[in-house]
Amino acid sequence: MYRVLQLAVLILIAIPQIMAQSNSGTQLKSEAAIRAVLESQAKAWNNGDIDGYMDGYDRSDKTVFISGDSVSHGWQTVHDRYKKSYDTREKMGVLSFSDLEITFTSSESAVVLGRWRLKRANDEPHGTFTLIFRRTKAGWRIIHDHTSSAT
Amino acid sequence: MYRVLQLAVLILIAIPQIMAQSNSGTQLKSEAAIRAVLESQAKAWNNGDIDGYMDGYDRSDKTVFISGDSVSHGWQTVHDRYKKSYDTREKMGVLSFSDLEITFTSSESAVVLGRWRLKRANDEPHGTFTLIFRRTKAGWRIIHDHTSSAT
Repeated sequence: MYRVLQLAVLILIAIPQIMAQSNSGTQLKSEAAIRAVLESQAKAWNNGDIDGYMDGYDRSDKTVFISGDSVSHGWQTVHDRYKKSYDTREKMGVLSFSDLEITFTSSESAVVLGRWRLKRANDEPHGTFTLIFRRTKAGWRIIHDHTSSAT
Repeated sequence: MYRVLQLAVLILIAIPQIMAQSNSGTQLKSEAAIRAVLESQAKAWNNGDIDGYMDGYDRSDKTVFISGDSVSHGWQTVHDRYKKSYDTREKMGVLSFSDLEITFTSSESAVVLGRWRLKRANDEPHGTFTLIFRRTKAGWRIIHDHTSSAT
């Protein structure tokens, strides 16, 4: 009886540790998946491929993009806005992301703070962004993008 | 036996509905709590009370405020930034929030998109914001604020 009790106590002590390890393992995988989405986006952008870049966003009417005073609702609207604003390779320049800070708000959602920069022939616009990622059937995708430019 | 089975099936059918109702009830309460935080913030601001306004933010070193190209880490830093930028009642003006869209990413976290406006004697700065709220021991609090100004 004493041995059974001892074993039960050991198992009770171990469970939260095993769960924490498994959670932190899942979180590391999620973080890697989120970073991979952003890397794919930059790669697509730098190939002049806005459709590929847009794969990082959740294909939903609820996807939202905010910049300055403008709020765009829906994946298609965000897509069309990018296509219109960046209609030449010169305007697109070379995109890079940096200083990423990833905070999970649940196992299914994360906030990503970071900086963006476009190297172009005649200027170098840059700024910050807040992205809300959600785990969707297609993988981790952006459901909310608030982007600011340095003024 | 047949009656017991019938009852068991009814209970099994009812459980998800009861849980969904309870979830949506919890979410309505959370949404009301979040709106109340924002109302308190606007009220404090319009009383010239930046400390009261800052009660809406989580008192944590991880609280972050982003505006344009600037990223401020930590509740104290955000507090000091507000105190410095709005050191007179004239600069503070009358603050209002509008067009709030609240999206829950879990039972403990929400994204709030909205618009802000400051009515002042000589101008009316305004713009958009993305807030990440988390349920803390003190209640729902802002852990991440990305604010943009119309340019």
